[in-house]
Amino acid sequence: MKLLTLYGSSRKNGNSESLTKVLLQELNKEDYHEIYLMDYHIKPIVDKRHSEEGFQPVEDDYEEIARKMLNHQAVLFVTPLYWYGMSGHLKNFIDRWTGSLRSKEYDFKEIMKGKKMYVLIVGGPASPLTGLPLVQQFQLIAQFLQIEFAGYVIGKGVKPKEVLEDEDSILAAKQLGKK
Amino acid sequence: MKLLTLYGSSRKNGNSESLTKVLLQELNKEDYHEIYLMDYHIKPIVDKRHSEEGFQPVEDDYEEIARKMLNHQAVLFVTPLYWYGMSGHLKNFIDRWTGSLRSKEYDFKEIMKGKKMYVLIVGGPASPLTGLPLVQQFQLIAQFLQIEFAGYVIGKGVKPKEVLEDEDSILAAKQLGKK
Amino acid sequence: MKLLTLYGSSRKNGNSESLTKVLLQELNKEDYHEIYLMDYHIKPIVDKRHSEEGFQPVEDDYEEIARKMLNHQAVLFVTPLYWYGMSGHLKNFIDRWTGSLRSKEYDFKEIMKGKKMYVLIVGGPASPLTGLPLVQQFQLIAQFLQIEFAGYVIGKGVKPKEVLEDEDSILAAKQLGKK
Amino acid sequence: MKLLTLYGSSRKNGNSESLTKVLLQELNKEDYHEIYLMDYHIKPIVDKRHSEEGFQPVEDDYEEIARKMLNHQAVLFVTPLYWYGMSGHLKNFIDRWTGSLRSKEYDFKEIMKGKKMYVLIVGGPASPLTGLPLVQQFQLIAQFLQIEFAGYVIGKGVKPKEVLEDEDSILAAKQLGKK
Repeated sequence: MKLLTLYGSSRKNGNSESLTKVLLQELNKEDYHEIYLMDYHIKPIVDKRHSEEGFQPVEDDYEEIARKMLNHQAVLFVTPLYWYGMSGHLKNFIDRWTGSLRSKEYDFKEIMKGKKMYVLIVGGPASPLTGLPLVQQFQLIAQFLQIEFAGYVIGKGVKPKEVLEDEDSILAAKQLGKK
Repeated sequence: MKLLTLYGSSRKNGNSESLTKVLLQELNKEDYHEIYLMDYHIKPIVDKRHSEEGFQPVEDDYEEIARKMLNHQAVLFVTPLYWYGMSGHLKNFIDRWTGSLRSKEYDFKEIMKGKKMYVLIVGGPASPLTGLPLVQQFQLIAQFLQIEFAGYVIGKGVKPKEVLEDEDSILAAKQLGKK
Repeated sequence: MKLLTLYGSSRKNGNSESLTKVLLQELNKEDYHEIYLMDYHIKPIVDKRHSEEGFQPVEDDYEEIARKMLNHQAVLFVTPLYWYGMSGHLKNFIDRWTGSLRSKEYDFKEIMKGKKMYVLIVGGPASPLTGLPLVQQFQLIAQFLQIEFAGYVIGKGVKPKEVLEDEDSILAAKQLGKK
Repeated sequence: MKLLTLYGSSRKNGNSESLTKVLLQELNKEDYHEIYLMDYHIKPIVDKRHSEEGFQPVEDDYEEIARKMLNHQAVLFVTPLYWYGMSGHLKNFIDRWTGSLRSKEYDFKEIMKGKKMYVLIVGGPASPLTGLPLVQQFQLIAQFLQIEFAGYVIGKGVKPKEVLEDEDSILAAKQLGKK
């Protein structure tokens, strides 16, 4: 199974990335691909569902990443817990799916349908509780797209690398990696 | 009480705006101010909490809007339900609060503390249920900032103006407006 | 549409009952029937799914009420918010559905499938937020049984009749009654 | 730290019990005590908060178990996921705390305040998602009592002993046991 890992963090070497690396160590290198959303330019959506002209091409990197996602069988969404939700970087990307749903070049919903979704969140010490609304949001996204929500991890860490000292987080990430 | 209304939608005259207008009709015009986030440029956050130089000034409209928010006693967050969460536009704005928390020019947390928060969400027919994780996210934000989460409305409407035909939504918005 | 109202409170004339009466005033008397669970004896479930003999008849009032529910097209579950959940009285009743799912006398799941579910909860002033996990629980129950979760109200009131002074609660209950 | 384990299941040797045993193996035998609620008789609450006479003594086993709980420093609530909530057995016990809050023989809230709460839930394969409203309910209970909600596990298993073949559940239970 080819896995696309989408990092939603706004900085490199953060805790959500560190924990993801622990997870990815359980996989063969050829079985996954990584994308750092912060390295790309993705504009927030302009909703054109109800305008005559419909969605127009946008000059940014969205389509490139969207197509990579469609070409993988599984997607791991990685995000720090920012204000009890996913990062704006990741949300901007997901919001744009609304345009893809109306794309004439591919059937977004049909292609997504067969995929598996994994979620890795890292936040403060209370995040196994305060991260739950975000897990529920991903659950609803999976239901809408008829994706299988195959697993999630909520790690704990604020200071750099702190998550790597949290045994709970490490174990859970490794366990998810095995799947 | 002076209320700031922050529209998170990516289009004008959408259902979340229409329903908000119903709510605002219950208020005197001098008692509220409106900001459409789509009219401004707000970059996604770059997290500098753990870098030596700290958060640096960003060339965009964030500070202007943040200061307006700090100058009002109440904030009404308006967002369509995009993928079971707030819009990327609004999330980008809120993510940037992390920088404001470290501002040397004002004490963000102290100023926010006394305020009231209201939330108006509009989504599809199931949104009184599928919008609940988003309400819970705002609840956690309010708890963190020790803001009073004084009320929320979840309206139903997808096609333009549809929310105005939904009696539940109208009544609830009017009722929140009276408060 | 014939509606069965199931009161889960442990006392008469409580706030959840008072608010329900406001809702029921919108209906014709012949269109609804009321059952106060506290007037009946319903034992907690003994799970016999994995025992050889299976579920055995229990000497209490469960079957009588279950059959009444099956004979109505819609059910309104009324409960005070006890410890952020439904009352034990109501939970004991719902837990017993597990036995009904294996009944040889009726096809519980098939008969429930067509129905509509309404929920009315009354709790303290924060219950529009603290009652949300309970709403989500009912949402999952409805999904499992393929019932339509057609509406809910969360009222505010602790002292006797207090809910009747809460305009939000009254309006919402009336509005639900109209549906 | 002395831990009281409260089993909420309605049958012996069920999956929630099996998984709890895995967790308890990480502890010394003298450090925990186990109570099976199904072995005791606990009546649903009769709410007397607003009646003149107040809560009266009830002839059942509630007080005995409540006092044991008060005498331990930590409580592990174990429940199968029944209809996306805790079992009626456990809910009946917790509902009765409302009477204890008004007890003249002990200061329930004051004694509970210092304690730690753990939760172990076992449900079907989707329960890491469908069990989340129940986790949120326990979170609210902990907040109200100012208890520390120190950890939770959601295990997967329906058929007898099935949870013991689920590596995720086993690992998570062991990990919680170490704490």
